[in-house]
Amino acid sequence: MVTNVRFDEKGLVPAIIQDYKTGEVLMLAYMNEESLHKTIETKRTWFYSRSRQELWQKGATSGNDQYVKQLNYDCDEDALLIQVEQVGGACHTGEKSCFYREEDIGESTPFNRSVVSELYNAIEERK
Amino acid sequence: MVTNVRFDEKGLVPAIIQDYKTGEVLMLAYMNEESLHKTIETKRTWFYSRSRQELWQKGATSGNDQYVKQLNYDCDEDALLIQVEQVGGACHTGEKSCFYREEDIGESTPFNRSVVSELYNAIEERK
Repeated sequence: MVTNVRFDEKGLVPAIIQDYKTGEVLMLAYMNEESLHKTIETKRTWFYSRSRQELWQKGATSGNDQYVKQLNYDCDEDALLIQVEQVGGACHTGEKSCFYREEDIGESTPFNRSVVSELYNAIEERK
Repeated sequence: MVTNVRFDEKGLVPAIIQDYKTGEVLMLAYMNEESLHKTIETKRTWFYSRSRQELWQKGATSGNDQYVKQLNYDCDEDALLIQVEQVGGACHTGEKSCFYREEDIGESTPFNRSVVSELYNAIEERK
């Protein structure tokens, strides 16, 4: 089970969490082997907290669960991409995504993932 | 400039690279402070290779450039999300995304990001 995943020298692998419907990237967190197994077993995301040095289940205290829909791993097998159905916000700040802050790099054409939700609505209306 | 980003004990920060149009997650790579600055300065992605211990510009040899459209950082400032316009495939295997392999977790409702492209087409057709 997930035999291909390579954990780093601390026994961790980064996991990108993405909203399976809109494609919005919600957060980046780390899994060790045990949390990865629990994630697949329970279909909820489990992570390893590097600061608290313990496993934690996303949503266990906040109620903002992540239901796992798809799990991919990358070409060199040291990163995970997990598509989830997110209940409420993924970020402890209350924001939907942890990546809510943008660095101004002088680009005038920012793209917002919420556009995807608008696309769904536009299609529904035009049916 | 990007004063808020916190690099780890190796001087690195993980950067999630996402297709700015479709939302597809293309790859995960690492930046040090120099490569982050070069990324913002040149509007092309620069990474730090942990194995080769050197900076590299995505596309420099393959031609598969990544034009930076938006740069976000997360709530605890130790991860980046960079939206790019990807020329060709992002993966050295020739695949569009490095996350082309899926782990079977027994879910019967996988979601494919290419659906977003289909949405665009559907809307265009129904105008």
